[in-house]
This record gives sequence, C-alpha cells and structure tokens, in this order.
Amino acid sequence: VTVLTNFCFLIRNNPDIDAAVQLLVKLKLEYKTATGQDYKAGCPPSDGPTLQDNGPSVTEGEDLVNPWNVTTTSAKGVDYDKLIVRFGSSKIDQELVDRIERVSGQKPHRFLRRGIFFSHRDMHQVLDAYESKKSFYLYTGRGPSSEAMHVGHLIPFIFTKWLQDVFDVPLVIQLTDDEKYLWKDLSVEECHRYAVENAKDIIACGFDINKTFIFSDLDYMGSSPGFYRNVVKIQKHVTFNQVKGIFGFTDSDCIGKISFPAIQAAPSFSTSFPQIFNGRKDVQCLIPCAIDQDPYFRMTRDVAPRIGYPKPALLHSTFFPALQGAQSKMSASDPNSSIFLTDTPKQIKNKINKHAFSGGKDTIEEHRKYGGDPDVDVSFMYLTFFLEDDEQLDKIRQDYTSGVLLTGELKKRLIDTLQPMISAHQQRRKLVTDEMVQQFMTSRPLDFNY
Amino acid sequence: VTVLTNFCFLIRNNPDIDAAVQLLVKLKLEYKTATGQDYKAGCPPSDGPTLQDNGPSVTEGEDLVNPWNVTTTSAKGVDYDKLIVRFGSSKIDQELVDRIERVSGQKPHRFLRRGIFFSHRDMHQVLDAYESKKSFYLYTGRGPSSEAMHVGHLIPFIFTKWLQDVFDVPLVIQLTDDEKYLWKDLSVEECHRYAVENAKDIIACGFDINKTFIFSDLDYMGSSPGFYRNVVKIQKHVTFNQVKGIFGFTDSDCIGKISFPAIQAAPSFSTSFPQIFNGRKDVQCLIPCAIDQDPYFRMTRDVAPRIGYPKPALLHSTFFPALQGAQSKMSASDPNSSIFLTDTPKQIKNKINKHAFSGGKDTIEEHRKYGGDPDVDVSFMYLTFFLEDDEQLDKIRQDYTSGVLLTGELKKRLIDTLQPMISAHQQRRKLVTDEMVQQFMTSRPLDFNY
Repeated sequence: VTVLTNFCFLIRNNPDIDAAVQLLVKLKLEYKTATGQDYKAGCPPSDGPTLQDNGPSVTEGEDLVNPWNVTTTSAKGVDYDKLIVRFGSSKIDQELVDRIERVSGQKPHRFLRRGIFFSHRDMHQVLDAYESKKSFYLYTGRGPSSEAMHVGHLIPFIFTKWLQDVFDVPLVIQLTDDEKYLWKDLSVEECHRYAVENAKDIIACGFDINKTFIFSDLDYMGSSPGFYRNVVKIQKHVTFNQVKGIFGFTDSDCIGKISFPAIQAAPSFSTSFPQIFNGRKDVQCLIPCAIDQDPYFRMTRDVAPRIGYPKPALLHSTFFPALQGAQSKMSASDPNSSIFLTDTPKQIKNKINKHAFSGGKDTIEEHRKYGGDPDVDVSFMYLTFFLEDDEQLDKIRQDYTSGVLLTGELKKRLIDTLQPMISAHQQRRKLVTDEMVQQFMTSRPLDFNY
Repeated sequence: VTVLTNFCFLIRNNPDIDAAVQLLVKLKLEYKTATGQDYKAGCPPSDGPTLQDNGPSVTEGEDLVNPWNVTTTSAKGVDYDKLIVRFGSSKIDQELVDRIERVSGQKPHRFLRRGIFFSHRDMHQVLDAYESKKSFYLYTGRGPSSEAMHVGHLIPFIFTKWLQDVFDVPLVIQLTDDEKYLWKDLSVEECHRYAVENAKDIIACGFDINKTFIFSDLDYMGSSPGFYRNVVKIQKHVTFNQVKGIFGFTDSDCIGKISFPAIQAAPSFSTSFPQIFNGRKDVQCLIPCAIDQDPYFRMTRDVAPRIGYPKPALLHSTFFPALQGAQSKMSASDPNSSIFLTDTPKQIKNKINKHAFSGGKDTIEEHRKYGGDPDVDVSFMYLTFFLEDDEQLDKIRQDYTSGVLLTGELKKRLIDTLQPMISAHQQRRKLVTDEMVQQFMTSRPLDFNY
C-alpha cells in the first residue's frame, strides 16, 4: 500500500521527471518483490490528453489527436467521423457545401467538394449573418518551428485565401513563435526568424496585402495593448485543471506552456486588433484550421461568452498524410516525409517514386488483375488535395481501382501536378520582398470600414 | 489495489474538483469496507505550498508570509530574524549600514538606521560594483487594487527615492494592474485606472522625472517587445511544480495567476527596458520591497543565470502595522485600518486617538507606575517609520517606557508628525498634472548613457 500511494505522490510532486521515473522503476520492482504481482499503473506520468472537454477520453484503439500528436493505426488515416462525435463538432455535409456555394456565388473549393475540410462549428451562423450583411473575419496561423515548410502546411492557407477571395473579409494570420520557443530547444531569435521566413511562404500563397495582417506573437504581443488585454482576460477564465484536461499538461510543464493556450485563443476576438476593427467587439471570427488545433478553440469558445465576446466559428481540415502513409502527420524534420516547398523538380520526382506509399499490387500482373487501393495510396491522396479537375480525379480513382492505371503511372500524375505547383510557388516567393513582408507584418488598418 | 491507484488517477485527471472529491470520499469508504483499514492519502488534492525553494515550509506556530497573506500571532509582529533564516536571505547588519554610508557619502536613511529595511540579498555585490564605477538600477512596484493608498504603501517609495537620490541611478516602477485583474473581482479598465491614480501618489513622493519610468503592465506589455521576450524566457524556465511550491497555487487556479510570477520577475532584467539600457543585459537590478514579495524574486534569482542575466539584488522591509496592531498587514478596504493619503487632519487625529493600538496601561496611575510597552504600541511603531530625529524618538521610547509619557501624549506626537506629512503629500499630489503622469508613464530613454 505504501509503495502504491508513493507512486502517485512521487510523480505529482517531483519536478525532476527523470528522477521520478527512476524511482518509479525502483518502486515497481519492490512492489513485484513484495506481492509477486506486476504493478498495473493507475497513475502514470501523463504524456498526453486523458480527458477531452467535449466527448469521452481516448480509449484503446482510438486515434490520438491533439496539437502535438496525431496517431492512428489505420492505413486510411484517422477516423474523422468518430472524431466529429468525440470533439462534438458538426459534419460539413452536402447541404452546407451547397449553401456556401449559394451564399458565395462561387463553386465550392475542392477541399470542400472532397471532404478535406470535413467538420465545422457554427458555420451556418456565420452564413446567416453574412446573408444579413453582417461581416466576419478570418483567422488562421502557423507554428514556425523551422524554415522548412512542406505542401501539407499550405492546406489551411490555400483554403483561407479562397475564403478571403470569395467573402472579401479581413484576415489575420498568427505565427506562434513564442509557442515554438516554449516547446522546442530553440532561441527566441531563431523562432522569430523562422516566423519571418515562413511569412514569405504564406505571402506567396497570394494573400491580398490590403486585407491581410500577418503577425509574430513575439512582436505583436509587445506592440498591441488590445491583444495583451484579451490574453489576460482569457487567462483569468481558464484554470490549470481545464488546460490539464484539454491539453494533457502536467505539473512538470513550464508555466509558459500552461498559459500559452490563451495566446492562441486571443486572435479569435476582434478587440485584439483595434487597428483593424476600430474597437468593435462584435465581429465574429471564422477559423479554418486542421482538426488537431480544435482543443484550443473548444477552450476559446467556452471562455468567449464569459468575457462578453462572440464564439469563433471553425472549419476543420483532415490531416495531410506523410509520404510513407496516413498513419501519422508529417514531420518538418524528416526531409523524406513530404514534399517541401524548396524541393527541386528532380527531388519531387525521386521522393514520390521512392517514398510515396502505394496501394498497388506487388506485380504488374496482379495489379492488372485485382486493381489498386486508392484509399491507402498516398499518391492518390495527394492528388485529392491538389488536382483541381473532379472528372480527372474520378477517372484516376476508377482506373487505379480497376487496374488499368499502374502505380508508376499514378505517381507520374502526381509528379506532373506537384512539379509546376511547387515551381510556381517558388517563383511567387522570389517576388516577395523584405518590404512586402514588413508591410504585411505591420500593425495597421486594413481596407475595411468598421 | 484498484481503489488505491484510482485515487490518484481521479484527482490528477478530473477537472471538476468537486466531483473528484466526492469520488474520493466514496472510494475511501470502499477501501475501508474492503480492507478494514483507514486509507492514508498519499496523493491529496493540492491546496497549499508543499515546497519552498529556499528553506523549509511553514509549520505550526510560525508566521505565514507570502504575497497575499501575512499572519502572525505575536503582538510585536512577524519574527523577522526567523524569516531571514527561513527565506535564506542575509541580515542588514551595522557593518552593511556603515558601508552604505561610506560608499554613498550620506547618512543612512532612518529605515536603515532603525532596521525597517532589515534583510538583503547580494547588497554587498551591488556596492562592490558601484565602487568600481559599475552602475545598477532600481526596481520597485505596487499592485493597484484601489485608488486608496495608505501611509504604509509609501514605505518602499520613500526608501527608493532616497536610494535614487543617493546613488543617482535609473528607476523603474511596475504597477501590476494585470495582477489585480487576475486576483480581484475588478475589470481590466478599473485596474488600469487605479494604476494611473496610484502613479500620481507615487510621483508625489518626489521622483526625478528624468530618471524614473513608471509603467502599467497592461500598457507596457503591449508596447515593448523586449519586455514580452523576457516574460516568455522566464515562463520557459519555471514549472508549475515550482510556482506551486513557492506561491501555493493549486490546480483550480487560473492560468493567468500561474504564469503571472514571470511578469513581476521580468523588470529585474535590464533588457526589459531597451529604451533605457540601450539593449545592455548586464546592468544589475536592486529591488527594494516588503519581505512578502521575496518569493517572486527567489524565483527570479533562480531563473536569471539560466537565461544569461545577472541575479537581482534585494533590500527587504518589515511590514507596516495596521492601526489595530502588528498581527496583520493593513487592508486598503478597511478605512480604519490605517492612515490614508487622502485623510484630512481631523480624520488623522480621530483615527489615531480611536483606533491606534496602545501599549499603555489601563489607568494613568498604573501607567505612571509601570510605564508603557513601546514594542506593541502602534503609535510608537508609526513614529519609528516617520519621525526623522533619532534623539527625539529615543527620548519618546524612554519616557513612554518609564511612564513619564502618557498614551494620549504619545498619540499627539504621532498626530503632529503625520498631519503635516500627509498635508504636504496632498499638496505635492495636487501639483501632479495629467501631462506629468503621461510623461512618467511613457516608454522613453532616461538621463543616463548606456
């Protein structure tokens, strides 16, 4: 009994996690010696979310999805329908896609047509307001942990640019260089430099300089009293128990991590940008982001009414798969895990041919006979993201499934799609001057009257 | 075994503390039923400090001293010698007082002569550097929880002004309006307004406008990237376990409180004020403050070398007693607990006559015969703080102890000391214009070359 109770006590109170783990191992041995039984941990060192504020906790066999870890055991990737139930969000169904088309007067983006943005919160409310001439604004962001961005990082930006073009609304883009400093073994200066470098790739997506504000937290927190006031308001209304439940923080985490969620939450409120919204606090925010960022905004939506602000609405995307398969998110630190925005046409070709996980059969004969499986084929998945033409994509799926299209041919279609796309991005990025970056990143009014 | 392990798991993972406690009670019962023994908790819900970073924790009979609570059971007040041992600081002995006199060429301030500033950290190091022409800067502050400031609030400012005059160094004064917002039931706007109002009383102490920067956290955090960068650096190097041990935070505290200590720590580093120190990071900081603020700076000194900055030095004062006696700090919310800076001469007279705790005897006859006890007499204590003349003070002590001086006469001496002092303060405060406040509170270079 003593041993057991000590377990928990040690882990809860020992600021040196390594020492705690060593003691744990020692105590486990003692327990086995004393009882002849293995100790089954009921109080392990926490290293991930154990509770969700919406829906039940993660249990065995379920996908793990939080801002720092996404894991699944299925080759098809995360089960998104289950995630919608667990997170308590709503599915983007055909009715909503049709409504977006009706309200915007534009053909829905391929990400909507193909269920890549698959989940939402309060999107109907945003459209109701828009139809009665009440505006909203867009907020998305990125954690700049290195200079290297891959094609998967572009997903929220490509989609956000489409939303900006279609709805003609202000856009704020947060670069969480402070977060990366807190989480990674990097200096403040490095993180800030990555933010500026990443801003160039973001600008190269084609955002309207008169309608877009890009900011580094390290800079903007120190240049906007409105932003810090909102951060403090949020921080007053969220307890450690809550962030522990939502993000899986432990007592050994630094106080910077513990309070950071308020900083990612603050841009959801228009008063964080008085220069854009002229002090108005009722302009609703719409956040396009990958579903792993949802915990931040569940928290934000919980706090919003308590500090007198509207809840932000959300549009959630699926994850962009690694070349090696859909079981995990890509890593910017593994150059072969994805196509990077700096890759040459040759690198793109080689990476896809060598590393893209194939749903094809082992031999041409078998493939012709049984066909391939596009649902686990990474090249096909990538085409779903980047090939604009629905008919072509559908034909590829059919031909691959029937065995008419071979894996090499499928890969060639992807190479032919990505090479010009990446080259065009690189061309646009070259045209992004330091002055443009500075202008995008300067706190200023945008071309909207509030 | 299952029951036991669940204990810890529940408490660690249940964001609803009430539900966790209920389950705990239920499980305790089950444990007793199953084993016939009482369960001894090894993993209780945390609700107070369990670790001190310096010295052992508070045990029964000891004084409780932290930034939010100061309690003692002795009429003479807190036992400061014990506090020095517990906090691991050093006594300001006669040798140090003499050295300050030698180095500064000035008679030591009465607060030094009389042990009101009684404890320090690294003051000899500051003087060593000063003697070899290396400068330092002063940092003190106040939490603006209301417009009402009492004479006790002036102690650090009176002493800091003397230090500024004597050593001719820059001074920064932090008004923690963000802290007050987090801790009190006040709006951000109210706290900020109190900060500006309190700044007027602080300016009325006579600080040199060319050598002093007064700032509200809510404003300065949002106008200085250097300050926020230091806050994030500190927040990365302090864990929840540490602030739990130092400040007694619990899992139910909001994340704003948990991360706030970094904001009080940041002005201890010269890079938080690039406009004053020209980016230099090696200018040491000297912090005059009441001893209850020491936990913040123990934490700061622990972090400093790990982020490449010098540790701040400290000068600690005793507490200013309430009119009702030395058992507690005064409360700005109880108008009769102290003399307020807005009190009229008549109010001062009445408060002292009615409320000042007396160390005299019950009747004149007894008093004449046995004498009074100046060590528990609040009027005498106040004179120790405010009567400049050492000989007069000594005579009052002798006469009161011998019974020559009656309580009414002692109180009259205090009234005669405080009435002109408060009137003069009120006169000076009237001369503080909004423009002056704005100038003091504007981020700008001071009259020093770094």
